[in-house]
Amino acid sequence: MGTTQLEAAQEPKYWHLKTVLNDALDSEFEVGEILPNERDLAARFGVARATLRQALEQLELEGRLQRRRGVGTTVAPPRIGVPVGPSAHTWPGAGRDAWATVGCAEAVAPAQIASVLGTGSDEPVHTVRRQRVIQGQQIATELLYVPAGSVPDLSGMLSPADHAPAVLRELHALALESEDRSVELGSARAEDARQLDRLPGAPVLVVTTRYFAGGRVAAVSVATYRADTCRLTFGDSGTLEVLHQEPDEDRAAS
Amino acid sequence: MGTTQLEAAQEPKYWHLKTVLNDALDSEFEVGEILPNERDLAARFGVARATLRQALEQLELEGRLQRRRGVGTTVAPPRIGVPVGPSAHTWPGAGRDAWATVGCAEAVAPAQIASVLGTGSDEPVHTVRRQRVIQGQQIATELLYVPAGSVPDLSGMLSPADHAPAVLRELHALALESEDRSVELGSARAEDARQLDRLPGAPVLVVTTRYFAGGRVAAVSVATYRADTCRLTFGDSGTLEVLHQEPDEDRAAS
Repeated sequence: MGTTQLEAAQEPKYWHLKTVLNDALDSEFEVGEILPNERDLAARFGVARATLRQALEQLELEGRLQRRRGVGTTVAPPRIGVPVGPSAHTWPGAGRDAWATVGCAEAVAPAQIASVLGTGSDEPVHTVRRQRVIQGQQIATELLYVPAGSVPDLSGMLSPADHAPAVLRELHALALESEDRSVELGSARAEDARQLDRLPGAPVLVVTTRYFAGGRVAAVSVATYRADTCRLTFGDSGTLEVLHQEPDEDRAAS
Repeated sequence: MGTTQLEAAQEPKYWHLKTVLNDALDSEFEVGEILPNERDLAARFGVARATLRQALEQLELEGRLQRRRGVGTTVAPPRIGVPVGPSAHTWPGAGRDAWATVGCAEAVAPAQIASVLGTGSDEPVHTVRRQRVIQGQQIATELLYVPAGSVPDLSGMLSPADHAPAVLRELHALALESEDRSVELGSARAEDARQLDRLPGAPVLVVTTRYFAGGRVAAVSVATYRADTCRLTFGDSGTLEVLHQEPDEDRAAS
C-alpha cells in the first residue's frame, strides 16, 4: 500500500489535539465523567471528526480515556497494577491464585502451542479456561494448555464439572522446576473481547508463561489482559505509582 | 461522545477481512515482502479503503505487518524476544548491559517521576537518555532518572561527555537492594517515535523500573519499546517460541 501516511509531517494533526484534550481532561473533568459527544467536541476544538477520533484513540491507548459499552467515553481511573510475576514459583491454581476456573475442554492445541509443548499435531491437550477479576472487573482471560502426557494418571471419564479441577490437581503433583514469561501486544479475539467487555480487536497485553517440569514444558498459559485498564507488575516490591506519562513532560534529556 | 461504535455488531466489518488477509499473508507472501497498495488491496477484497485500513491496523497491532518509513507495509518477521527481567540484580549500565548511553541532562523531573522518587518538585534530577539496539534496529529508548540526592558526591562541573558516565559510576557505588518493574501500553511521544522510526502515537510497551538502595527509590527508569517488533521476556529460560496467535485457533476451551 502507499506510504502516504508515513511520509506525512512528523507531527500529525491529531497529535496537537491530543495534547490539548489531555490538558482539558486534567482541568475540566473528573475520573468517570462522560465526555461530550463527538460532534460537540469536534466543534469545540474546531477539528474534523476523523481527527477527533484519532486523538481519542490515542488517549485510550494511553489509558486516559475508557470506552464503555452503552455508556460512552469516560475519563479513565488510574490503571490497576496487576501482579504477574510471582516471587514464589507456583503452578496455576495452586495456593493464593488470582484466577477463577471457567471451564475445560480436551482438544488439539493450536500449532504454535503444540510446538512449544513439543506435542504431536494430533495429541490431545487439556485446555483450561480461566478468568481474573479485580475490583469487580474482569481484567484477563487465560487458556492453560496441559498436554495429556503431563497428566497421564488423569481418568478418561470426567464430568465437565470435574475436568478442570482434576487437570489442575494432577498438574500440582508434578515438581515445578521453573517458569518464564513473555509480554507482547495483541488484539482481542472475539471470545476474549466479549468476556473483557471490549470490542474485538481492542489492544490487549498477551502474557505467555511456560511451566517446566521433568526437564520439559509441562504446561503453557496464554493470558490476555485488557491493555486499557491494566499495568502488569513484576517483582516483589508492590505496585508502582507511575501511572501515566504526560506527553513531552520528560523531554529533559538531550 | 456517541457510543455508536460500541453498540454496533459484535463482529465489526474489518474483523472478517482481517482473518482473510491473515490467511493471504500466510499463503501468498514471504516475510519482508511489500504489500500491494491500499487501492489494489481494497479492490481485490471488495471493501472500502477505510475498512481495509482498519484491518491492516489490526494486523500491525498483532505484529503480522510492519509499516516502514519510505518502504510501505511489509510482512513482519517474528517478533524479537527481548530479555527485560534480568535474573541478577544489576544497576543500569553495569556489567553486560544491553543499553548504550546517548546523553544526559540535569533538570526537574516530571511530576509522576518526582512522586515515585520522593524528590521535591524543584529538586534537580540527572536524566540519562539511553537506547537499545538489537539486530541493527533501535528497539527501545530509555530515560533513567537519578535524583541528585542519590549521587551526592558527583562533581557539579561536568562536561556533557562526562555527565552520563559519572552519574552511572556514582550510582554503581550504591548497594542495589532490589528492583521492580511494570509493563503497560503507551503511545510513542514525538521524540521517542523519531528515534524508534515510528509515527508519533504508535503503540509502545512502557517498562518502568524502580531501583531501591538505602531503603528508598534511588533511580527510576522509563523504557519505551516498539510494540510492533518486540516481545518482552521475563525469567531465565531463554526466549519463547510462541510468536503469534492465530484468531479463533484456540477457541477449544468451553
